[in-house]
Amino acid sequence: MSLQRTLGTCYYPEHWPEDFWEEDAARMADLGLTWVRIGEFAWSRLEPAPGDLQFDWLDRAIDILHGAGLRVVLGTPTATPPRWMLTKHPDMLAVDDEGHPRKFGSRRHYCFSHDGYRDEAIRITRLLAERFGGKVEAWQTDNEYGCHDTIYSYSDAARVAFRDWLAQKYQSTDALNRAWGNVFWSMEYDSFNDIDLPNLTVTEPNPAHALDFRRFSSDQVARFNGAQVAAIRAHSSAPISHNYMGRIVEFDHFATGRQMEIATWDSYPLGFLEDRLEDDAAHKRRYARQGDPDFQAFHHDLYRAVGKDGRWWVMEQQPGPVNWAPHNPAPLPGMVRFWTWEAFAHGAECVAYFRWRQAPFAQEQYHAGLLRPDGAEAEGFAEAAQVARELKHLPKVESAQAPVALVFDYASAWGWSVQPQGAGCDYFRLVFEVYRGLRKLGLSVDIISPDTATLDGYALVLAPGVLTLSEPLKAAITGTKAQVILGPRTNAKTHALSTPIPLPPAIAGFDATISRVETIRVDTPIAAKNGGHVKLWFEQITTSEMAIEATQDGAPILLQSGNLGYLAGWPDEALLRRILTRAATAAGLTPLDLPQDIRIRDTGQTQFTFNHGPDPVIYNGQTIPFAGVAWR
Amino acid sequence: MSLQRTLGTCYYPEHWPEDFWEEDAARMADLGLTWVRIGEFAWSRLEPAPGDLQFDWLDRAIDILHGAGLRVVLGTPTATPPRWMLTKHPDMLAVDDEGHPRKFGSRRHYCFSHDGYRDEAIRITRLLAERFGGKVEAWQTDNEYGCHDTIYSYSDAARVAFRDWLAQKYQSTDALNRAWGNVFWSMEYDSFNDIDLPNLTVTEPNPAHALDFRRFSSDQVARFNGAQVAAIRAHSSAPISHNYMGRIVEFDHFATGRQMEIATWDSYPLGFLEDRLEDDAAHKRRYARQGDPDFQAFHHDLYRAVGKDGRWWVMEQQPGPVNWAPHNPAPLPGMVRFWTWEAFAHGAECVAYFRWRQAPFAQEQYHAGLLRPDGAEAEGFAEAAQVARELKHLPKVESAQAPVALVFDYASAWGWSVQPQGAGCDYFRLVFEVYRGLRKLGLSVDIISPDTATLDGYALVLAPGVLTLSEPLKAAITGTKAQVILGPRTNAKTHALSTPIPLPPAIAGFDATISRVETIRVDTPIAAKNGGHVKLWFEQITTSEMAIEATQDGAPILLQSGNLGYLAGWPDEALLRRILTRAATAAGLTPLDLPQDIRIRDTGQTQFTFNHGPDPVIYNGQTIPFAGVAWR
Amino acid sequence: MSLQRTLGTCYYPEHWPEDFWEEDAARMADLGLTWVRIGEFAWSRLEPAPGDLQFDWLDRAIDILHGAGLRVVLGTPTATPPRWMLTKHPDMLAVDDEGHPRKFGSRRHYCFSHDGYRDEAIRITRLLAERFGGKVEAWQTDNEYGCHDTIYSYSDAARVAFRDWLAQKYQSTDALNRAWGNVFWSMEYDSFNDIDLPNLTVTEPNPAHALDFRRFSSDQVARFNGAQVAAIRAHSSAPISHNYMGRIVEFDHFATGRQMEIATWDSYPLGFLEDRLEDDAAHKRRYARQGDPDFQAFHHDLYRAVGKDGRWWVMEQQPGPVNWAPHNPAPLPGMVRFWTWEAFAHGAECVAYFRWRQAPFAQEQYHAGLLRPDGAEAEGFAEAAQVARELKHLPKVESAQAPVALVFDYASAWGWSVQPQGAGCDYFRLVFEVYRGLRKLGLSVDIISPDTATLDGYALVLAPGVLTLSEPLKAAITGTKAQVILGPRTNAKTHALSTPIPLPPAIAGFDATISRVETIRVDTPIAAKNGGHVKLWFEQITTSEMAIEATQDGAPILLQSGNLGYLAGWPDEALLRRILTRAATAAGLTPLDLPQDIRIRDTGQTQFTFNHGPDPVIYNGQTIPFAGVAWR
Repeated sequence: MSLQRTLGTCYYPEHWPEDFWEEDAARMADLGLTWVRIGEFAWSRLEPAPGDLQFDWLDRAIDILHGAGLRVVLGTPTATPPRWMLTKHPDMLAVDDEGHPRKFGSRRHYCFSHDGYRDEAIRITRLLAERFGGKVEAWQTDNEYGCHDTIYSYSDAARVAFRDWLAQKYQSTDALNRAWGNVFWSMEYDSFNDIDLPNLTVTEPNPAHALDFRRFSSDQVARFNGAQVAAIRAHSSAPISHNYMGRIVEFDHFATGRQMEIATWDSYPLGFLEDRLEDDAAHKRRYARQGDPDFQAFHHDLYRAVGKDGRWWVMEQQPGPVNWAPHNPAPLPGMVRFWTWEAFAHGAECVAYFRWRQAPFAQEQYHAGLLRPDGAEAEGFAEAAQVARELKHLPKVESAQAPVALVFDYASAWGWSVQPQGAGCDYFRLVFEVYRGLRKLGLSVDIISPDTATLDGYALVLAPGVLTLSEPLKAAITGTKAQVILGPRTNAKTHALSTPIPLPPAIAGFDATISRVETIRVDTPIAAKNGGHVKLWFEQITTSEMAIEATQDGAPILLQSGNLGYLAGWPDEALLRRILTRAATAAGLTPLDLPQDIRIRDTGQTQFTFNHGPDPVIYNGQTIPFAGVAWR
Repeated sequence: MSLQRTLGTCYYPEHWPEDFWEEDAARMADLGLTWVRIGEFAWSRLEPAPGDLQFDWLDRAIDILHGAGLRVVLGTPTATPPRWMLTKHPDMLAVDDEGHPRKFGSRRHYCFSHDGYRDEAIRITRLLAERFGGKVEAWQTDNEYGCHDTIYSYSDAARVAFRDWLAQKYQSTDALNRAWGNVFWSMEYDSFNDIDLPNLTVTEPNPAHALDFRRFSSDQVARFNGAQVAAIRAHSSAPISHNYMGRIVEFDHFATGRQMEIATWDSYPLGFLEDRLEDDAAHKRRYARQGDPDFQAFHHDLYRAVGKDGRWWVMEQQPGPVNWAPHNPAPLPGMVRFWTWEAFAHGAECVAYFRWRQAPFAQEQYHAGLLRPDGAEAEGFAEAAQVARELKHLPKVESAQAPVALVFDYASAWGWSVQPQGAGCDYFRLVFEVYRGLRKLGLSVDIISPDTATLDGYALVLAPGVLTLSEPLKAAITGTKAQVILGPRTNAKTHALSTPIPLPPAIAGFDATISRVETIRVDTPIAAKNGGHVKLWFEQITTSEMAIEATQDGAPILLQSGNLGYLAGWPDEALLRRILTRAATAAGLTPLDLPQDIRIRDTGQTQFTFNHGPDPVIYNGQTIPFAGVAWR
Repeated sequence: MSLQRTLGTCYYPEHWPEDFWEEDAARMADLGLTWVRIGEFAWSRLEPAPGDLQFDWLDRAIDILHGAGLRVVLGTPTATPPRWMLTKHPDMLAVDDEGHPRKFGSRRHYCFSHDGYRDEAIRITRLLAERFGGKVEAWQTDNEYGCHDTIYSYSDAARVAFRDWLAQKYQSTDALNRAWGNVFWSMEYDSFNDIDLPNLTVTEPNPAHALDFRRFSSDQVARFNGAQVAAIRAHSSAPISHNYMGRIVEFDHFATGRQMEIATWDSYPLGFLEDRLEDDAAHKRRYARQGDPDFQAFHHDLYRAVGKDGRWWVMEQQPGPVNWAPHNPAPLPGMVRFWTWEAFAHGAECVAYFRWRQAPFAQEQYHAGLLRPDGAEAEGFAEAAQVARELKHLPKVESAQAPVALVFDYASAWGWSVQPQGAGCDYFRLVFEVYRGLRKLGLSVDIISPDTATLDGYALVLAPGVLTLSEPLKAAITGTKAQVILGPRTNAKTHALSTPIPLPPAIAGFDATISRVETIRVDTPIAAKNGGHVKLWFEQITTSEMAIEATQDGAPILLQSGNLGYLAGWPDEALLRRILTRAATAAGLTPLDLPQDIRIRDTGQTQFTFNHGPDPVIYNGQTIPFAGVAWR
């Protein structure tokens, strides 16, 4: 699919005098922007009092944007219900795991399980859809589900809904007791109404209890989102999106993704480096002004999988310093352009900068915009303009299937977090390290959902840490001719987070039994015979399969049987590189020995080369400046 | 006393299909086990609904075990009351120090002060004793009092009981005000009903208030345990035990120990190393797969003192990786045997492995058993079998009195925690370091209670940090011919945690006055004249006694008068070694210069040598392999 | 103004048998003390039950002190209301930010906004003033406002009072919504009664909301203190003081300072070094027994500004180890004298040692006094006596105006804490580092309030981080001929913590626009062209002014226009030293190159030299011992 690549921005007409709007729109159009997102925090201006709808100003704002030739994404304002909503629904607030209601005064102050609030959210969405359904070019539901830890709520509403969810799932407490193994510590229930939310227990709750609460919480998000989508659909044929945040794994994005046409996300490379990554200080120093070389790419590839038919955007692109990380440096000159091109290289339809003009008031005063608070051009402005010019001579940015597939499974993230078995054993981190390892070899990657039923077209497939392989994926793995690497911990659990018997990994035709799991201190990794180490997680395996990687003591690390490999531990960088290099080669691919800061994205027709480092790099005989992008 | 040394395991028939039981019992017997502990988490199966007693299955399980020649320890199931108990007694939950009820869903979810729950605990205990009192060979009350910080509860029930406890102790608020020094900040009370639990005060509460709350809390445990013991005694002459956890100091084990015949504890060397010890990363790396060389031995010696007539067991012996520490590595091959022999060397009657078969469900799925979840033998199985074979040629493991006595006083642990005066000043740690220092010199140690009235038979006695010397112990110290070392902080406090006047240590005939106490940064220890340092805690002493250790500035560190020494600070390893070496020599003992990883336990008839290191060690001309035990 | 310099102590007659009093008073007088503070924690003895006044014992104590020739400071006992107060006013407790009432059992257990308690505080104050107003020589209100984080309370009383405060300030919610920018996330209010306290919001509250809560909380302290002052004034002409703690910035000391004659504070150099300073371990090791070389001096200079007409005391001087820091070492011999002289050098009228006799009971047993608990002289006694002797030959300790002025603004501390924008960006720390930088150059400093209207007599003026310059100060800066350095972040905010437009710093006649702010990792500072670095905070400036310091990339760090400089970042020590040296030289001062441990205080007539190091230092050809003071 070849789409026009466009630029956009996020605009808050309600923040500015109405006589600014015309000039703002004109400057956006001059800059070369196509899209403007509006409305997603404006509920108190759209309905200042219950039932008092004030949509005219929004209509005028849209008209002005349209008048300048811009297209509009309208956000439903449900992430920021006004103060009067709380008077109507005093118990609508989410409750934290210590039992404190999470109060009004910022944003996302609602519990997904509160029916009264959900009805209000549907109502305002329906009203907006009725009024603007034929007018705006796209929609966004709510904003950043899960930001500020807002998926889990321990409210009364959540408790009631969780009990109902369990009753529907298990039908009887006997079935639930068996599934959870509640006999273990006399945790058996006679009534669904006796089951509480799994917070504030004396020691860890039953992991099945905790996992079901995470599943339930994710379902509540999908239910909430689905209701908004339905309300919009009834009055609009414009595509619908939700705008996701980075490294939010508390709900299943594939489930909400299926409800809509487009997935968008917020790419804040510098904020994420400081706030979302475990890498060491040397890494954070090196990339302080460019961001991690793989974190944005990972999410680009992830949201390409979340969006229906691969349709995805960056809805909020960092244009300068942000305000919310522990440290908020300015990007190196050129990075705003660089990040934009990187998104396009991974298939983004649109990259929208957050925000048009920096706000002089409230929580995000130190979050840069394309304009300064006084309306002068900020640094990002000229870089966006450069991209706009370059887009006219755009290389063909198709999104062909990549040669490598990497499974990402939200339920596994929950299962690992419920039962990490060792400090640092985090599912996202494991998958991300594998992704980074593939990228360091110059490979382009598709992230795929755990329900994928076919692996056709892939030469290499990885599914590290997927706790329970779905039947379709298991069949696809068995049937594929691609090189496949499973493990560690792949297929190690039942749906209820129990240990299956026969013991894992239980892959048909693959003789391996994990007889023991251990987790190890970061400072005592286990040396592999040929270099590198296993860290954090290691499985002892009884097997007759060939071990092509083993510890110095001879314990298998990587088993291989035909095209199927099983990795029994968490490899460090050196071991991972050797394993991936061998597998890629066996798959007929050509792994590269890239310089530290160089990454490549191959779209099928075009090969992009990105230098993420702070210095110029000579690669392939070509000097790539810092913040440099090359394509051919 | 010479007893037969036996092996055992912990078994949960309720976790497995009944048709497994027969084979399980047979395999236990074949392995050479003698004892099986059952029942301690089974309340929801013994009484699925209030009054609906279902004891038949347990009867059948016991019969099957008996049929295989095994002996049975029956645990009262009171650590895991069923969910219906909460419906009957909604306020039975303990409350944490922030005021949150500690909810159902795991275990130990009760407040020791709740009379309604205590009555239920007595009821089920009585019913079990009536039914099985003549049948089982031993009893266990509840399980692991204090695990998961469950001694202190800030519930309404605890508040009421604490007021009553204070009223009984002080008889008048005037007496309490005087004892506590409540005039200090106008904290005086007119009524016992005005006294609250000492949590959530603006800054630290009165230390006497905090200490009395700890005393009260400990008494509540003894009261709860004593009631169960009485209920059993009425129907059974089998010995009764409680199963303690490692490094739990929140209640006085000597008080509960006096109520029963046997003390048992849970020995998890690798979990403890990671989770319960302050030692540095190098230490944790070295012993990651063997456990700390002294931590288990310390508890073995402690529980020998807690058990009546020195009777003690390991009720739960780690048989492979556990699930609850920050990291959970596998033991080195041989360690399971090694730990078992170490326990026997310290006088254990029985070492029981936790657990028979690894559970495939619920909280402890990654806790190894002797069997894997699928019933195959795990690593520990063969090592247990080896011990069973070796036991037939058992060296005579008597428990003669050791030459060295070390006082351990729970009330001092509370006093130090209430008033540490400096970060890192922890009573357990102080005593443990002295114990470790003695062990590094090859000395065998008896831990003794603070009420000990005679020191006969000991050559060397240490009582570091015992805040208030009891009258019997003070008399024994004055009367003994043994070398005695007191301090730091020994006898530094009244019962109410006040400073006595005359000032400490106030030992008759020993001229020393602690005129000033200081606590010091770990990185600025005070150098001793002859090497080594004082760290953390240092007392300035006015004295006419001879200082046989002093700082480089000449301040006394160790005073000596006849056979009595007073240590004015917390010695580092080098200083401690010199002090202990001198004292042991003066006591007529022969301190050894052991290699780092070697420890010796002398039982009177047999000398055991243990190599705790990861490598073989040549000692006394003999090569001891890692995980090696030698005896002669 | 030349005043007699005096010594004093803090005494608690209610802690001791009445037959001790006479001898205590005689020993105080013999020691050379002039002042004794009493009464501030004695409410439960002054009024054991509601209305049951027992003032006679206090009268007798005062008579005895007077009889020995001592003068008395009487403290109102309102920091420690008795237990019966809580029965009368169960909701008088402050509430922490998690919603927990902060319970009785220590001290400062009240909410400043509780009218009922405030009336009680006024009542007891009035009664004491009536009885003792003509008798005592000075007064102290309450004690250590803000100690133990007691300024902010999230109680119902505070909520009601905050709403009223907002209503009075803004008059309409429209005005409030505009000032706060509540449109930002639909945070608009229709009623003041809908506004909650800014705790427990989902993510950060509106910074204007948070700042107004801090302003309100500070005003509540001033209201509480003002009421006590009025009650005393009605019956006494003796000077009134409040006794402040170190590094408490949660309320505006200038506001309370204006209500009274004298400011006093508590100087605990060793406690502060451990507990209140961010400096690294090497620094803390070096000064472990002397205290930070600048922290006490900073507060001395600060409280000279807080006290009316520069009148200030040290009300509590550390006399030996304290009990409340993470580590509590003993001072080096001589430090008690040293600290006393340092206070006099900065203008203290009186230095009072806390406390007379060490308490053998309650919370502060390990806090040294001039006497040991048994009444023997402690180390500090002889040093105090030495000062008393030296005072007779006192150098003339006038307090002339210093050549350098440094603005300290409590509201800026609140604004920075609400919106630090980067970890480590703390207002107090910034000002303190500038102060330390000035002191290292041998300069004496006056700290001045942000409302200062004239800078006459100063050669050099600094106002780093003052978020909003007051109109008087702005005019003074514009009008002065002194060298002035503003920035970073000076005048960067409106009163509502918004970004002003035109953009900061907006100093008339100074062409500079801060176009971007960034915060940076401590380990990635920005190198300055001529050495040193900018750390933590950096502003990008558009300017036509001359940059006399710039980054290696040429970005301005320090702009200079005539006598006005603007510093665009947070300088490290090397850069700061160069900047201050240049400015001081331009101001006609003579910056010195002092040894690391030497500090100088010039009072106009006398120059004191202090050696804060642990070793003797040769300075100006003279050997100054450790803990040494020289004057000429």
